Formats: sequence, structure tokens, C-alpha cells
Amino acid sequence: MSTYKAPLDDLRFALYDVLDVEKQFAALGQDEASRDIVDAVLDEAARFTETVLAPLNAIGDEVGCTFDKDSAEVTPPPGFKEAFQQFAEGGWTGLTASPDHGGQGMPAVLGYALTEMVDAANLAWGNFPMLSHGAVEALKHYGTDWQKETFLKPLVDGRWTGTMCLTEPHCGTDLGLLRTRAEPNDDGSYNISGTKIFITAGEHDLVPNIVHLVLAKLPDAPPGPKGISLFVVPKFKVGQDGTIGERNTVRCGSIEHKMGIHGSVTCVMNFDGAQGYLVGEPHRGLQAMFVMMNSARLGVGVQGIGLSERAWQNALRYSRERLQSRSLSGPKLPDKPADPIIVHPDVRRMLLTVKSLLEGSRLMAMHAYSLLDVAHGAGDPAEREKAETLVSFLTPISKACQTEWSVENTYHALQCFGGHGYIREHGMEQLARDARITTLYEGTTGIQSLDLVGRKTASTQGAGLKLFIGMIEEFAKAHEGDAALAEFIAPLQAKAGEWAQLTTGMLQRAANNPEELGAASTDYLFYSGYVVLAYWWARSVAAANASAQNEAFRQAKLETARFYYARILPRTLAHKAAIEAGAEPLMAMAAERFGA
Amino acid sequence: MSTYKAPLDDLRFALYDVLDVEKQFAALGQDEASRDIVDAVLDEAARFTETVLAPLNAIGDEVGCTFDKDSAEVTPPPGFKEAFQQFAEGGWTGLTASPDHGGQGMPAVLGYALTEMVDAANLAWGNFPMLSHGAVEALKHYGTDWQKETFLKPLVDGRWTGTMCLTEPHCGTDLGLLRTRAEPNDDGSYNISGTKIFITAGEHDLVPNIVHLVLAKLPDAPPGPKGISLFVVPKFKVGQDGTIGERNTVRCGSIEHKMGIHGSVTCVMNFDGAQGYLVGEPHRGLQAMFVMMNSARLGVGVQGIGLSERAWQNALRYSRERLQSRSLSGPKLPDKPADPIIVHPDVRRMLLTVKSLLEGSRLMAMHAYSLLDVAHGAGDPAEREKAETLVSFLTPISKACQTEWSVENTYHALQCFGGHGYIREHGMEQLARDARITTLYEGTTGIQSLDLVGRKTASTQGAGLKLFIGMIEEFAKAHEGDAALAEFIAPLQAKAGEWAQLTTGMLQRAANNPEELGAASTDYLFYSGYVVLAYWWARSVAAANASAQNEAFRQAKLETARFYYARILPRTLAHKAAIEAGAEPLMAMAAERFGA
Repeated sequence: MSTYKAPLDDLRFALYDVLDVEKQFAALGQDEASRDIVDAVLDEAARFTETVLAPLNAIGDEVGCTFDKDSAEVTPPPGFKEAFQQFAEGGWTGLTASPDHGGQGMPAVLGYALTEMVDAANLAWGNFPMLSHGAVEALKHYGTDWQKETFLKPLVDGRWTGTMCLTEPHCGTDLGLLRTRAEPNDDGSYNISGTKIFITAGEHDLVPNIVHLVLAKLPDAPPGPKGISLFVVPKFKVGQDGTIGERNTVRCGSIEHKMGIHGSVTCVMNFDGAQGYLVGEPHRGLQAMFVMMNSARLGVGVQGIGLSERAWQNALRYSRERLQSRSLSGPKLPDKPADPIIVHPDVRRMLLTVKSLLEGSRLMAMHAYSLLDVAHGAGDPAEREKAETLVSFLTPISKACQTEWSVENTYHALQCFGGHGYIREHGMEQLARDARITTLYEGTTGIQSLDLVGRKTASTQGAGLKLFIGMIEEFAKAHEGDAALAEFIAPLQAKAGEWAQLTTGMLQRAANNPEELGAASTDYLFYSGYVVLAYWWARSVAAANASAQNEAFRQAKLETARFYYARILPRTLAHKAAIEAGAEPLMAMAAERFGA
Repeated sequence: MSTYKAPLDDLRFALYDVLDVEKQFAALGQDEASRDIVDAVLDEAARFTETVLAPLNAIGDEVGCTFDKDSAEVTPPPGFKEAFQQFAEGGWTGLTASPDHGGQGMPAVLGYALTEMVDAANLAWGNFPMLSHGAVEALKHYGTDWQKETFLKPLVDGRWTGTMCLTEPHCGTDLGLLRTRAEPNDDGSYNISGTKIFITAGEHDLVPNIVHLVLAKLPDAPPGPKGISLFVVPKFKVGQDGTIGERNTVRCGSIEHKMGIHGSVTCVMNFDGAQGYLVGEPHRGLQAMFVMMNSARLGVGVQGIGLSERAWQNALRYSRERLQSRSLSGPKLPDKPADPIIVHPDVRRMLLTVKSLLEGSRLMAMHAYSLLDVAHGAGDPAEREKAETLVSFLTPISKACQTEWSVENTYHALQCFGGHGYIREHGMEQLARDARITTLYEGTTGIQSLDLVGRKTASTQGAGLKLFIGMIEEFAKAHEGDAALAEFIAPLQAKAGEWAQLTTGMLQRAANNPEELGAASTDYLFYSGYVVLAYWWARSVAAANASAQNEAFRQAKLETARFYYARILPRTLAHKAAIEAGAEPLMAMAAERFGA
């Protein structure tokens, strides 16, 4: 069975030494997030996730969720309900929510740390609170006062949970095709009818009520994505005074049997004239949906890191324990029958790949969450806008890279176990199966890539990219002449220049042929991700050198950074070549020539 | 559910147009393999695998194998036994075996085609006959006349099946550590005692007897790998006259619960003084083991291709059927609500990646099998030795690349399905789970890579590499001035030169530091694989141009080759940089600094 211990040292290094959140919290007036409080939250989150959630991970996979056809009720795995109650009672569901809605108002970047621990401990379980988070965001921005009072507060305090009901059988990415209808009633409510699929946490018994955020079309809706509206539809109706009433006509039709995340329930939801309320303006549902979606995308990116962390810990432990063959440069443990496999260069290649992608990703993600704090809390509107632009640009990179790397990381970690990795009892194969969903839901990697090259680059004339390159230049300038960093800063600056050139070239080609953006998209996204990580590895070395961390910690950061620059960053060479090859090699083949 | 149709057009193109097997069969005197016969075998193999094996694939995954603790018997999934009986009755188990042992004496390269179809139709089922193949090879080369008569013939005609019992709980790669003991009896037999794990097809009811090939140590064995001997141990004892006698004291102790290949049983086998017979000379078991292993390694490589083919077919079908969003360059099916996703460049990127790796791999693998035919059948000893050297060099590349690419290909194919790919009913996630074993068993990718850089390159001064580069030069020379091939030949020759330089550099560094070989190994293996595939893609274009294939087929090969050169071959840039980075970035970190 795989085990988990929260990586508090690295989380604290990221928060205090690299991101210097104390300075940011002070600048944003987040006085409640004192270092004492933050440390206490980290310690308590570690305790909860290690002792309550982590032990339920394997049984959640083994038992899964069960669906009772007659009652249309879903029972999550044993222990999930009790754990959720503890989570809610501990105030974790509202950690980062506004005190106006019953939350604790802690910074988003601290919410990141909690979420990473939850996801590492038990990804499937983590989906129950995660989906609430998207609903909270939508209601916070677009809900009426009554909706906030009635639906938002119970979500924040964990009495209820939320869902996002977007996908239908014939439409996932292309929401303009959706068929769910909303008919207005005289009392201002609407009757929602249609079938939604892939609804995470759509039905369960962890809490007495579930708040569905549902995309549907009004009778007068224009065709396509501009005709979509957002509704809030509770499982049990709620009176004007907030009391729970009769069962609404929304029911789970069946649950999916999936490759992994068995403890997370994925429902077909049938809305049969269910009572709901319009959230935001008519036909402007897509806008509200993106608010939910951006939160969920960053959240899925964190899932990738959680899985990578758990995979890493177990692969490292096994690689130190498993004795097999001798080091190529002579026995390292001559008294033992063989050396631990961590002596072998190729095992080290796998371990260091995971370590460098994981710790680099952690900074990429935490930076994005810290930008959310700035975007919401900075006094200067220009600063807020800058943070907003940057986090918008980084969101698809963060989501796609962290999830793709979690597939890679769980792959390497399993591979370190040899044949034992394929056996269920070691728990490594569960991590690989669980990771596989993260590159699919809340927008596949392909969709993230299109978002990056289209809405986040072409449409903004590279505004986000320019800001990130500005960060690189600022860092390089601040450390000009620092001999300890020279080996990183020169290649980093070179990559930043190449990144800008690649972007210009891509946009120029796209001006003549719109397929060029799509053809470059995924390679461009990965290229960007590797350069972003190169920046964070250089910053990590700088921060470690400037910190009070012990020598072994500093040395490990330096060696991991060197590994990253020498053996991972060169992947950009292949992505660059693929981008520059353009659309022709992809588009030349007529669809019928692909095969029989 | 995923479906399967044998790719007979591409198999025939590979056999007749690219590899020109008719010429080879004639040169080797394999007169029984006339084109009529070969075509009939292909058609019948297609029929059998499509109609008998493919329908059992999903149920095999769902039901799996069951173990009865009291009887220590294993029951494979429903239909597996009947399918095996039909397979044996059809003469398929002995297709490529010598007529001396009851086989049909068909060429190994035709055996490839059968195996690919079996693996694509039902990988888990295919493990039952595959393991026999290794046992056949060992007994053919090292068995006594009585052993051949008694054990080899029933394996060839499919009355019995075989196993390879190598791994023990504390030793996988490092067989020198093994503890299983063999005590000589007065009658010339031995009593074998010990525990073996990960024994594929170790126990089942498909046939009445099972022939275990077991590595064990004699009482006077020197320590380490030079003290290992090979024994044949039947499940039921066999008399001198070949009659089946009493149950031998070898029993299945338990079966593993695995990530995939649920229909293939993986056993813990307990040998408790079981009667066995020495195969080959005492203490020379490792040599015999490598004969089994080489057969099994090529066989696992074929599994990768089978899975990639099935994944490919289903991803292509879905990408043509699924309507979602419009083409970036304007609607392609304006009458439909959306365009099929195959219009999108990034979906094409995934499909063409699979297609180019799959069809290129097929030639890489078939070439290796055709070399086995030459190595066994050529009249000229020098030609036999050359073929042997080349296939030895190509075996780790073929095994590791084809299996790693099957992980990648099943990944892309699942990704084409979006969220639907994660749901069991579509069958794509089974392919991904099944593929995951192939990079582990019969030597992980890391072990293949060490074999390539060590025994197959450093120890032979690059003999195999030189032969392959010679093939590239010969091809380039034969097509000098061929305008249709110039776009491929120039980069191919450049890569061949770079490959040779990289090898020299690696060997030079290794002369000073043995860790350099291990540090380069996996990147060197992939680099080699991509250049090998570049060769086969150039040859494919040449063969298609020279063939009577229709224009659409020729065009598709050309366009796939162009895609491969433009967007896949550049991966060598990243591998080259990683190789040249050397061992230092991998070895610098002390084991204790990796983490807590």
C-alpha cells in the first residue's frame, strides 16, 4: 500500500523562502494570515490528511461507490462520510472563502497547500469538496443575495456540497450544442429538463443537500454558446427562509465505471422539470461557467501535484530499500547481498525527473494561487489587472502541464517498482489510474492548449507572456553577477528570448492560416511549461541560497536544478522543432486516407 | 467496447513490398511459405483472432482469473479454454516450430503476423501461448532427446503449455541472488524446492499439463549468476514412455491482483521437492535462460504493437464519428451540428503520432523476426552470424521502444475519446492498463537500455550499430538521385552520422566512468529507436512508390512519413542533449539528499 506524509518542509520553503508570502500578505492586508496561524494550519492539515484521508485511499479504490437503482441513491466508500463531516467541522471547507459567507478568509495560496495535501492523501475523496469550490465561485460572483444566503453559505461551511452540470452525451467541449432547457415559472423560478453526464459528486450521502450549477437554454435563447444560461438547482428544494423542502425532480440515473478515482462518483443526472433559479443574466451562462471552470482547472492541476507527491515518496522509499544488482562503479553496500536500486543511474534519472517536475510544479501552481490573492485583494487596480492577466495566461499551462506530468511521474514511480508496481497491493498502479483522469476533465490538454494559444495569447497579443518574460528579466537583473546563479540565468534568458520568437512566429503563421494555432498548441503549451519551470528552478536555487535552510536542503535544490537544466529543459528542443514544422504535416492527410 | 479488425493490408505491405519476404523465403529454401500459403495463413489468423479472441477481451478483463485456495487450481475467464483448444486444433501453436518437433516450419516473420493479431485481439489470452514459446526455445536448444520427445512436442502441438520460472520475491533482475535449490536424486532427476513469483500461466485448466522451466541452484553451485542451472518441472510427472503420472509437488500459492491483463494469470509457484530434470549443463542455466528471454522480449515487443493497433483503430473510428466544434478554417460539415473531431489539428497530431509509431514499429519488429529466419536458416555462416548480431542489437530497442510507444499510443488514443476514454465501457482504458505491463515484464525498459549500451554496444564495439548504419548507407546509395526520397534520405543520413558520434562519445566517457553507460542508457535507446523508425519510414515511402498499392495508400505512407520526420524525429534532439549531459547531473546527489 502506498503511504503519505505531507511535505511540510518543501511547502514552507515555497511559501516563505521562494514566494515570500509574508511580504505579500502584509501588502494585501491579510493580517489574519500571520506566520503562526499559517504554520498551525499547515500542521493541522498535514495531521488531518495523513491520519484521516490517506488511510481511506486504497479502500476507496477497492470498494468504490455503489448506486441503488430503486432509490437512485449513491453510497460512497466506507469512511468517506465521516471524513467529510470531520473536514467540515474543522472549518476546512471554508478556509479561503470570504468571512461574509461564513469562510475564514485565508489566502488562496494557503488553500493550495491544503488542497495539495488532500489530493495526495485521497484524490477521489478530494473531489467532493473541490466541486463545491467551483459552485462557490459562481455564486459569489453572480448569485443574488438570496442565492448567496441560501446556497453559498451551506457550501462554504460544508453542510452541503456543489456540482457543475455542463456536459451532455453529445456535447463536452462544444457547449453550444447543449439541449437542456429551462422554462420560466410565474414565481421567478425555472423548470429545468435534460440529461447531464460526467457529474462529479452528483449524488451521494455525505451531506443532506446538493447544489447543482446547471447550464441550460431559455426558450428564447439564441443558438450556440451565446444562448446558454446558468441555473442553481438544489437536490432538495429550499424555501425562501432557507428551510429544506421536498425532493426536487433531479435524480441520478446511473454512475460510471471508470479506470480510476473509484471513490469519486461520476453521475448521469436527469433533470425532469426540476426547480431552479437563474444565476446571473440570461444567456450569459458561459461567462459564469468560466469562473467556475478557472477555479476547477487550477484545482485539477493541484490534483496532478498531489498524485506526483505521493508517487514520489513511495518510489523514493522503495528505491532506497530494494536491493538489486551492484552499482556500476563497484559495490556500495558490500555487506549486503546487493546495492539499493537508488545507486543505479537510470533509477536516479526516473527519481530526479519526478522530483524536478514535482517541486517545480509546486511553485508554478502556488505562484498562480498567490496571483489570485493579488487579483482579488490588491489595492491598486493596475496591479489587480496585471495579476489577473498573468494568472489567466498561466492557468492552462498549470492545469495541462501539472496533470500531464502527473501521468509521467506516476509512470516513473511505478516503473521504479519493476513488476511489483503493476500489483495492486503496492498502490502505485492506483496512482497511475487516478492520474489518468486529470488530463481529461475540466478540459483536456488539447483544450487547455487551444485556450493558451488562442484566448490567452493570440487574442491578447501575448500580454501574459510578456509579463512572465518580464519576471524572468527582473530576476536576471536582480542576480546579475551572482556567480552561484550564472549557470542558470544565461540559459533561462536564452529560453525566454526563444519563447518570444517562437510566439511571434506562430502568430505570424496563424495570420495566414488559422490551423497554425491548433497545430502548434500542445507543443507550445509544453514548451511554455518547461520554461516556466526553468524559471522556478532558478528562483529555487536563489531562494535556497538566501534562506536559513540547512546545507543538505540547499545542496539538494541546487543538484535538482542542475538535473532539470541538463536533462529536462532540453525537451524544449523537440517541442520547438514540432512547433516550427507548422500545420502542413498535420493537415495534409485527407480524413479518409488515415486508414480503413 | 473496443473493436478489432486485423490490418491485413498493412501486414501484406510490410511483408511483400517493404521486406520482400518472397525473395528471402526463396533464398532460405523456405518453399513451404509460398505466397498462396502465406496469404491463406494471414486470412485465417485474421478470422480466428477477430471472431474468437477479440470478443473475449472485455470479459477477460471484467471477470479475470479465479484461484481456489483448497485445490490450488486457477480458472481463467469464460471462453479462454475453448479458444485455446481451437487455437491448438488449428495448428497455430506450432506454426513456426520445426517439423522435427511436430511444428509447421513456417518462417518466424509470419509468426510475427499471427502474434500481432493475437495480441491485438486479446493480449491477456495471448500470454498463454507466448510463454510456451520461450519454453520451446529453451528445450529445442538445450533439451535431451527424451526431454524433446516428452516435453517439447506437447508444447508445440498445444496439448500442454509452458512457463518461465525465474523471479523470486527478493530477486528479479538480479538472478544471482536466487534461492531455489535442486537436489540430485539417484535416478538422474532432481528435487526442486523454492518459491517463484510473477509466473505467467503458472496454473490454469486450459490444458492437462504445464511444463515449468525453472532456474535453481545445485548444491555445489558457485555463488552469483554463474551458479544457476535450468530445470524442466512438469505439473504432472511424466514417465519415461511419456505417460502422465501423479501430481508433482509444485503448486500455485496465490495469484496477483494486477492493474491490467486480468485474463492472464500471474502466480506464486511453490516448489516443494518437485521432480525435475536438468536442461543443458550444470551452472549454465543463465545461457539457456537468455534463449527463452530473447524470444520473450521480442514477443513482448509485439504485444506493444498489438495494443497500439487496437487503440489506433478505435481512436480513428471515434475521431471520425464524434461531432464537436468547428474546424478552425471554417465548417467542414455545415449540414451537421459540428465537425468530426478529426478536423482539429491537435486530434490529428495524436492520431498521426500513433499511426507513425505503430506502422514504423511494425517494420522494426518484422525485420527483427525476419533476421531470426536468416540467423537460423541461411546457408552461409557469415550471413547467419551477421543476422544474429543485428537481431541481438535490435532486440532491446524493439522490446523497449515498442512497449513504451504502446503506453504512449494507448494514451493518445484514450485522449481522443475525451472523458469517454476514462469510462470502462469504451474499452480504451483497458488497453492503457494492459499496455502498462509491457514496459515491466521480461526486463524493464531500464534493463533493455543497459543491455543495449552494455552487452550489445560496449562489449561488441558497436558491431550491431555498424550493421544498421550500413543498411542506412546501402539504402541511401540505392536511391541516390531519387527526387521522391531526397527529403528523407538527407536527414536520415545526418541522423545516422550523429548516432555514430553519440555512440563514440558515450563509450569514450564510459572508459573513464562506468556510470556513464547507465546514465546514457535509456535516452540512447530511445534515440536509437527513433532513428531506426526514420529508416523504416524512408523505406516505406520507397516501397510504396515501387509497389502496386493504390494511390491513396501511397499518399498516406508519404504523408505519415513526412509527419514522422517533421514532428516525431525531432525528439532525438532532446535525447541527444540528455545523453551528452553525462552522468554528473544524475550521480551528484547523495542518496540521503533525495528527500525525507
